[in-house]
Amino acid sequence: MADPPERPVSDPDEEIMRATYRALREYGYADLTIKRIAEEYGKTTAAVHYHYDTKEDLLAAFLDFLLGQFRDAVHEVETTDPEQRLTLLLDKLLVDPEDHQNLLIAMLEMRSQAPYKDTFSERFEQNDEYIRYMLKTVIDQGIEEGVFNDVDAEHTARTLMTIVDGARTRTVVLDDTDVLATARESADEYVTAVLLREDG
Amino acid sequence: MADPPERPVSDPDEEIMRATYRALREYGYADLTIKRIAEEYGKTTAAVHYHYDTKEDLLAAFLDFLLGQFRDAVHEVETTDPEQRLTLLLDKLLVDPEDHQNLLIAMLEMRSQAPYKDTFSERFEQNDEYIRYMLKTVIDQGIEEGVFNDVDAEHTARTLMTIVDGARTRTVVLDDTDVLATARESADEYVTAVLLREDG
Repeated sequence: MADPPERPVSDPDEEIMRATYRALREYGYADLTIKRIAEEYGKTTAAVHYHYDTKEDLLAAFLDFLLGQFRDAVHEVETTDPEQRLTLLLDKLLVDPEDHQNLLIAMLEMRSQAPYKDTFSERFEQNDEYIRYMLKTVIDQGIEEGVFNDVDAEHTARTLMTIVDGARTRTVVLDDTDVLATARESADEYVTAVLLREDG
Repeated sequence: MADPPERPVSDPDEEIMRATYRALREYGYADLTIKRIAEEYGKTTAAVHYHYDTKEDLLAAFLDFLLGQFRDAVHEVETTDPEQRLTLLLDKLLVDPEDHQNLLIAMLEMRSQAPYKDTFSERFEQNDEYIRYMLKTVIDQGIEEGVFNDVDAEHTARTLMTIVDGARTRTVVLDDTDVLATARESADEYVTAVLLREDG
């Protein structure tokens, strides 16, 4: 979460999002308050409420922010080789460079509230659709270039996201640090078996 | 959830568990109260509290009850053929005969609380271990009989449970009824590719 070095952070929305990120990691979803976000932000609760009416509005914006972060990370992937590109996408989805356990816990709490909060479910559906679209695009590209078998790219993308979501849930519920590495291996096995297998 | 025909339900614990099941499906986790469970049970809250001190105790017992239900269902699987047995296990884990959406929602809420409630996390870990053990046993049996490739059975079981948990989460978060069928297909593809592929 280091700021890009080329420009100072001066956008209040982005500062509040970074403060929310820190507060969620520290306190979790159930104990998250506007007051705690304001403390991380270094300003008053009024300053936060000036931008976001309710905690739910703020958290909806936070989910948009996380997707934006993911998009930025993905745009850094410069290779156009489909196999390498798919590997790097799966790395970003399943390899955890920092200690994000508390964020994953807070995210699962928000996910479990999706059936009750439209602002959450809309974001989760949109995020999922975006990532599936990225996976499908690289798979279609590989099929076109003849390096991947002629599979149902949409189904393959859904399978990979099922593995990703399973790993995210299991990391939180089972408190097992090997879960993400196991799932990364499972995703590789699936890709090798379904996309790369010689018999097509 | 039909009662076994050979004996009437007379165990109060089991009756309370069935009442909890109905109350969870109707009201969800957040709105579940001992009062609502008592209403489903057809007795007073005192009658429920006589058996369970707190809602958390009751829900911990409910998780044990669900695992018991799953064990009973699994013991009905009579085949000893490893490939058929694995198929039937995956059917039980991923094919949803009734409309269980509300139960899945309540379960995901409980799962998201595992990091905060030891009584929940213990049960979820124990459930997962039990089901992985069942999967591993049938995979090992298939390897021994020469019908499955000589894979790491523990890893294969973990992969299958990652797909199962991913499907459970996605069904709730994305409100997409195809999720379980997609995951069932993904699990089959994985089994075919990894366990049954000719080259081993």
